[in-house]
Amino acid sequence: MTDLDPEEFRRLGYAVVDWIAGYRAGVGDLPVRPAVEPGWVRSQLPDTLPEAPRELGALLGELDRVVVPATTHWQHPGFFGYFPANASLHSVLGDLLSGGLGVQGMLWSTSPAATEVEQVLLDGLADALGLGPAFTWAGGGGGTIADSASSAALVALLAALHRTSGGAWRESGVDGTERVYVTAETHSSLAKAVRVAGLGARALRVVPPSPGSLAMSADALAEMLAADVAAGLRPVLVCATVGTTGTGAVDPVAAITAVTAPHRVWVHVDAAWAGVAALCPEHRDLLDGVEHVDSFCTDAHKWLMTAFDASLLWVRDAAALPDALSITPEYLRNSATDSGAVVDYRDWQVPLGRRFRALKLWTVIHGFGLEGLRAHLRGHVALAAELASWIEAEPGFVLAVPRSLSLVCFRLDTGDPDADDRATRALLERVNASGTALLTHTVVDGRHVVRVAIGSVATEREHVVALWDRLRGAAPGS
Amino acid sequence: MTDLDPEEFRRLGYAVVDWIAGYRAGVGDLPVRPAVEPGWVRSQLPDTLPEAPRELGALLGELDRVVVPATTHWQHPGFFGYFPANASLHSVLGDLLSGGLGVQGMLWSTSPAATEVEQVLLDGLADALGLGPAFTWAGGGGGTIADSASSAALVALLAALHRTSGGAWRESGVDGTERVYVTAETHSSLAKAVRVAGLGARALRVVPPSPGSLAMSADALAEMLAADVAAGLRPVLVCATVGTTGTGAVDPVAAITAVTAPHRVWVHVDAAWAGVAALCPEHRDLLDGVEHVDSFCTDAHKWLMTAFDASLLWVRDAAALPDALSITPEYLRNSATDSGAVVDYRDWQVPLGRRFRALKLWTVIHGFGLEGLRAHLRGHVALAAELASWIEAEPGFVLAVPRSLSLVCFRLDTGDPDADDRATRALLERVNASGTALLTHTVVDGRHVVRVAIGSVATEREHVVALWDRLRGAAPGS
Repeated sequence: MTDLDPEEFRRLGYAVVDWIAGYRAGVGDLPVRPAVEPGWVRSQLPDTLPEAPRELGALLGELDRVVVPATTHWQHPGFFGYFPANASLHSVLGDLLSGGLGVQGMLWSTSPAATEVEQVLLDGLADALGLGPAFTWAGGGGGTIADSASSAALVALLAALHRTSGGAWRESGVDGTERVYVTAETHSSLAKAVRVAGLGARALRVVPPSPGSLAMSADALAEMLAADVAAGLRPVLVCATVGTTGTGAVDPVAAITAVTAPHRVWVHVDAAWAGVAALCPEHRDLLDGVEHVDSFCTDAHKWLMTAFDASLLWVRDAAALPDALSITPEYLRNSATDSGAVVDYRDWQVPLGRRFRALKLWTVIHGFGLEGLRAHLRGHVALAAELASWIEAEPGFVLAVPRSLSLVCFRLDTGDPDADDRATRALLERVNASGTALLTHTVVDGRHVVRVAIGSVATEREHVVALWDRLRGAAPGS
Repeated sequence: MTDLDPEEFRRLGYAVVDWIAGYRAGVGDLPVRPAVEPGWVRSQLPDTLPEAPRELGALLGELDRVVVPATTHWQHPGFFGYFPANASLHSVLGDLLSGGLGVQGMLWSTSPAATEVEQVLLDGLADALGLGPAFTWAGGGGGTIADSASSAALVALLAALHRTSGGAWRESGVDGTERVYVTAETHSSLAKAVRVAGLGARALRVVPPSPGSLAMSADALAEMLAADVAAGLRPVLVCATVGTTGTGAVDPVAAITAVTAPHRVWVHVDAAWAGVAALCPEHRDLLDGVEHVDSFCTDAHKWLMTAFDASLLWVRDAAALPDALSITPEYLRNSATDSGAVVDYRDWQVPLGRRFRALKLWTVIHGFGLEGLRAHLRGHVALAAELASWIEAEPGFVLAVPRSLSLVCFRLDTGDPDADDRATRALLERVNASGTALLTHTVVDGRHVVRVAIGSVATEREHVVALWDRLRGAAPGS
């Protein structure tokens, strides 16, 4: 029993391409959120696996019958939930090439091109984002593609634990004195990384925001660092977020690095969603101060047209992650590694194996060009600015926080907080139930808030106009 | 600047499918290992990223010019290195469908089908592998697709830390008394997981092998557990390996669970490579005792026709991973999760985001059927048995350890250990330099050993015959 021969693959590959073309052409007509109960999909599929092979067409039929009706359509033009998960068709082609090559990029020697294409692209993006030469290979740093910002934050924390322990961490582990600094708005992946790393929730320091904002107060951070050091504790990592998940708040990176400078603490910038906007010079100020941080992460798989997973992580010190993470059993030894002339990306991540993820990033950059990517970002920022202006002008609606790039957070406001919260929840549920758009929520200062995260690949002005018409129409009193 | 329209995607998608068909049809004629120096790929690519979009054809040209000549061809029929990385064309089609749908499966509610298809397939495979009902959802356990066996081992360890701490771990972290039990042959990912989890290398207990073998001695484990408990230490996890990376050794799972039973220690089975062989009843004995362990991992992306990444992890207690890993910020709250009726796979892994990996597993099972997968496994086991018989019959060659499934480990043997080690190294390098096959090595009892890991998708009898002809021809004295 062997694999498809190349001619069969050609025939079936065309059929899958056709299926995807059809799905993407029609996705805007589907309800964004499926109307299925838990267990429905399982109830539709056989309990046992087939003994004999079956034709691909039968499986495509199952996708139409069971999977599509039970899918939340992240590529729908009316998807405004969470953050966008851009899976552009350009990137899908790159990922397909990666599957076709089928290489393991764990070591340079297990596929030199997989490693070096990634290095070249990350160098180019460091330049295009304005990160500065310190994060390029020539500057002593370097970039990698992680699966997610969660994993990027974890490895940054591990490198920080190693560095701040004077090297004891690899042998002795953590000692309970480590402290990690976040805000209440920092992504939960930081708390998860702290937990995974064995520090426990007690190691998390929640730095208060500057008055009137949701962004970290550098002054408060300075006080907490000093107090912790005085108490014999060890500041390990400060996470500055550029574009929080809830509301798009931006921690002041430059001010933070100014107060962390006297300490050995590692500064990580989590710009998972917003960081890619720095491709546009008019948004470059988001990254003010980034030249002083230790690591910087932004996700190509959110708003940069690249299918999950492609989280871009740069570190200032190319030795930091291998120093923390490398373990070399005999069966992985090879002359290229021993020479010291190559990067083995397995030492930049927790898993050993890795896909050739750089290919999908390459097809995106190649297919859109930097100017195309900037146009994509700018288009959504402009749409968000329009939506925010409509909200501001509409009686009974209020922006919960200032618009952040393409994220608009609003709530209903008639002066009765409890009634407004109920109405805001109901409004969100009515729009989601309509199937034309999907929105998610957060809570700001105890108030229920609707998030409109503009940025799906297919989202155009007409979809934002339709969303606003529906929001106005579904609001109480309309 | 928008994405490809569906018709353009159709045209370009066909072109990529054609490129892959051509690559796979011709890969056997390429040298398995590229003849490139570090830096060559980088030297061939521009330093800066393109401003304007370019045609896909130009990028396919770059793949031919730069990537293919600098690639280690894991899908080559002469690839016998490390372990196979089966990226069957069936699985490539499934991964393409996943990219086309472009969903985020972090929560049930963010794509119900992505979660439930995974549940159905993992239940079916638990049955097909003979894991027993305890690992199915109906039995109180459940399975998930992790990116790698490394990540699976890490989350198993985190669940074990949580459980054995009586729940203190999430708040207080590790306390330095934790101990993890492996052998010298256990995969390095366990040592890495121990490091990541903050335990430090001192927490690793290396259990000696049974006399005359490379497999864990259950008696020695029992003594170490008792001594550690008596010393006030806390046994957290025992890793039993079914099919070690170096030589395919099999730790005695049933005997291990017998001696761990009096303790609360978590038993994890790492059967990354060999576990899938249990699809064949004649290899089911590899898993004797698995019904008593806490977690079991085997990789579909090694020898089960599925493109990386698809590591299958089952746990006996479906609550164990969420209990250890769940953190729910406001923006991830949803009614389905609150109902308790669904599985949110983000709580089964470190990253938040996840791809719809089950699709590629589905296309594999659908396209080959279980009988096709068994034929694939059996064919390679039979080829390895033939090769081992030829080695045993050949003067100057000796098996370093008994053949394990489709893994054959041998060395040259003329009675002069130093000369034999040099000759074995030279033999491996001559074969690899020929470009017709790729082999990797390990060390057993201080002796240099060549590993022949049969199992690539395209490997047929003729390729093993050719390898053996070359090995005999390249050996000293031939």
